[in-house]
Amino acid sequence: MNKRKLHLATDYYQISMSNVYFCEGMQDLEAVFDVFIRKNPFHGGYTVFAGLEQVVEYLQNIRFEQEDIEILKKHHPELDDKYLEYLRNFKFTGSIDAMEEGSIVFPQEPLLRVRAPLIEAQFIETTILSILNHQTLIATKASRVVDAAEGDAVMEFGLRRAHGTEAGLYGARAAVIGGCIGTSNVEAENFWQLPAKGTMAHSFIMSFDSELEAFRTFAKHNPNNMILLVDTFDTLEGVQNAITVFKEFEQEGKLGKKGSYGIRLDSGDLAYLSKEARTMLDEAGFEGATIVASNDLDEYLIRDLKLQEAKINTWGVGTKLITAYDNAALGGVYKLSQITKNGVDVPVIKISDAPEKVTNPGAKTVYRIYDKRNNKAMADIIALDEETIDETKPYTIFHPLFTWKRRTLENFYVKPMHKEIFKNGELVYDMPDLYAAKQRLIDEKETFWPAVLRLKNPYEYHVDLSQELWNLKNKLMNQEHN
Amino acid sequence: MNKRKLHLATDYYQISMSNVYFCEGMQDLEAVFDVFIRKNPFHGGYTVFAGLEQVVEYLQNIRFEQEDIEILKKHHPELDDKYLEYLRNFKFTGSIDAMEEGSIVFPQEPLLRVRAPLIEAQFIETTILSILNHQTLIATKASRVVDAAEGDAVMEFGLRRAHGTEAGLYGARAAVIGGCIGTSNVEAENFWQLPAKGTMAHSFIMSFDSELEAFRTFAKHNPNNMILLVDTFDTLEGVQNAITVFKEFEQEGKLGKKGSYGIRLDSGDLAYLSKEARTMLDEAGFEGATIVASNDLDEYLIRDLKLQEAKINTWGVGTKLITAYDNAALGGVYKLSQITKNGVDVPVIKISDAPEKVTNPGAKTVYRIYDKRNNKAMADIIALDEETIDETKPYTIFHPLFTWKRRTLENFYVKPMHKEIFKNGELVYDMPDLYAAKQRLIDEKETFWPAVLRLKNPYEYHVDLSQELWNLKNKLMNQEHN
Repeated sequence: MNKRKLHLATDYYQISMSNVYFCEGMQDLEAVFDVFIRKNPFHGGYTVFAGLEQVVEYLQNIRFEQEDIEILKKHHPELDDKYLEYLRNFKFTGSIDAMEEGSIVFPQEPLLRVRAPLIEAQFIETTILSILNHQTLIATKASRVVDAAEGDAVMEFGLRRAHGTEAGLYGARAAVIGGCIGTSNVEAENFWQLPAKGTMAHSFIMSFDSELEAFRTFAKHNPNNMILLVDTFDTLEGVQNAITVFKEFEQEGKLGKKGSYGIRLDSGDLAYLSKEARTMLDEAGFEGATIVASNDLDEYLIRDLKLQEAKINTWGVGTKLITAYDNAALGGVYKLSQITKNGVDVPVIKISDAPEKVTNPGAKTVYRIYDKRNNKAMADIIALDEETIDETKPYTIFHPLFTWKRRTLENFYVKPMHKEIFKNGELVYDMPDLYAAKQRLIDEKETFWPAVLRLKNPYEYHVDLSQELWNLKNKLMNQEHN
Repeated sequence: MNKRKLHLATDYYQISMSNVYFCEGMQDLEAVFDVFIRKNPFHGGYTVFAGLEQVVEYLQNIRFEQEDIEILKKHHPELDDKYLEYLRNFKFTGSIDAMEEGSIVFPQEPLLRVRAPLIEAQFIETTILSILNHQTLIATKASRVVDAAEGDAVMEFGLRRAHGTEAGLYGARAAVIGGCIGTSNVEAENFWQLPAKGTMAHSFIMSFDSELEAFRTFAKHNPNNMILLVDTFDTLEGVQNAITVFKEFEQEGKLGKKGSYGIRLDSGDLAYLSKEARTMLDEAGFEGATIVASNDLDEYLIRDLKLQEAKINTWGVGTKLITAYDNAALGGVYKLSQITKNGVDVPVIKISDAPEKVTNPGAKTVYRIYDKRNNKAMADIIALDEETIDETKPYTIFHPLFTWKRRTLENFYVKPMHKEIFKNGELVYDMPDLYAAKQRLIDEKETFWPAVLRLKNPYEYHVDLSQELWNLKNKLMNQEHN
């Protein structure tokens, strides 16, 4: 079995380009690249940033062994020996600023910014995008599902449908950042101390002579996680059998606390069955029994089931979450925005016929402006690095394409969204744990109006360019078109 | 950085159930489980099986270290010490039959069948599904894209949009089984000796003072892979600059052979631009220049571009392929079909209100029936293990739900679709290399009528149950409903 080599998890063109840079003596040109998205996924109003921890791990562990060099040499005779020697000693020496995991972010904003020798900055593009596109996508999906569940617990159950086991693993991580309370994934439990949870499969029930026997046996060995799958034969008979087992435990004084026992529904009409089951459980005196539901759930089905007053306490969400089924790719890109030639920073722009696809030039950062009266976010400003926003004066923002759309903000405070992650190759960021990222999202959601978080047709939160950045961009656009 | 542990890449319920089996002395019960899909992805008429090699690697390498046991113990106090000791020594001892990679397969067919002690067979479910669901999905998507390209080369370019780097790696593998000629993924090159290919990014062009200088410099270092990206500024001017470079190489007698030089289009109207570029290249005498196109391609866009006579030789397909964007999950399941109690094989069935969701009982295999006159596949038969089909007699097949739909086949031959992979824990299958799987798909496609392979509204290939299996299934359904 071959061993994974993350430093090779890149597109070949990164290698062929960096070979040219090296051979041409361009390895000390410094470049700035931005990672950004062009639209929010799922037709939503926001995106949840995730995956930074794995980007950091990747950058800290890039190391070409001699065998890797031999492989490249064998397949690509055009690569220069001196370049291969350079790769053998490759180490990331650049600087990175980025959003923190769990942050609510928006299109066009630099989510992560690399300033590094061009040859290095180019080399790391693909791997960074692959990691961030994946986790940011799944965290955003999870956040939507969790919002739809309105405070009910949501569990991530999707490993079997993930795009392989690693997508399941990091998908579980991202799902927790997005708000899931846990996962079924045992490997994720090991990585991040996430509680791995589970109940039983239909095959378990079918391995016994009767459903009741299967329930009794499972309960005996899982007295504190006695969630019985009731729909193998007849669902409501299954609920009755579960009640029988709960009664037996109760009589022996062994029934656990609220939520430690209950049922799982995995088919049929979850609204009807959960209401019937709730009534049966309550009438038998088991108000503490939890009802877990699964079966092809997503944010829309959960919302509809709740509207129909389904009595479900925990939602087990698999396929649609772990694959971001209805929008299975985040189109995050990595674009050159500045290049330093002969010691001079030269902002650059990529023109496109589609105005919204023209990139933003220069080394940039992002500020979020909050209303002092209610602490709600009013707008984000993409600005050049050297700019600051004076909180004591009114600040006029305007739409970057339709500039007649203007608003003047007063009585606000400003939060810089970027943190310094790497400085000249050294990690300078104290990586928060997963639960801190999860908490950040919870806290940030409080600062957005519900209209921005709405599942369908959300309000478009304002992300504008500073006047200086807008001026620079328009100057470069006009130069290019001459 | 934590180390991946594939033996933990499972749902916790596999562990809680197997703990019960162990504690109850059920560890020697033998079970048969089938992996199957309920429908073809992409509204297509067929599915391409892939991922078996990684399943084999997984099964051969399951090994719990003491630290894994400690972790499970810490998080799950309900697990029995003796069970954990059992896990510490876990080894797969069962038997597996499966389709070969690159096989064309259909819904309901056992794609992989596990016969093993119940406790083992249950334990391996999630990991097997995660691997097979992913690779089978991507191989099928790739096959559709390759069909749409009608013999043109298709390259897999999707790593940056994959669900993480492992999904990119195994996705590249599956894409090659599906018919791609290569990938941009350097790690995949290392794993399977796939040629990793690439050209240049827009940022490369922007790092030079002019496009022409960028082209000249790239060409100098890549004389045998001189594919120049022409759309950074003005596409047709870019083509002109590429022609200038080709002429310079020609004059020096250094221009490579056909296909070793050319251009790449990554934006704009690919039909118009490719036709214009082709004319310009041909008029300049560069009929040997290849035209590579990329930009959000899938099978439908490729088909439309070809209908509009786009002059594209190589299609670089990224996002839509590597994420199977329009159908991002394959719903492969793993269902119990037989259990051996007191030495007696007992076929079992899972009833559902939806008739097509009722499982097929017993230990089963799959036969493909070919027409002797033209070697075309006529139907697949799911049969019980002990059954054979007599090629010398007419054979009547019938729809498993609408049994009045019958056909009697004559003049046919039969091919068993399953191979023995593991026998009592030992690998008995000589795993073919990736190119053999790719070739198998090419060969199998020859045996299907185009109607089955059609991208939209394909003909539904017949997959029927043998009379004996149908009888058994109906007997069990009627028993269950008494």
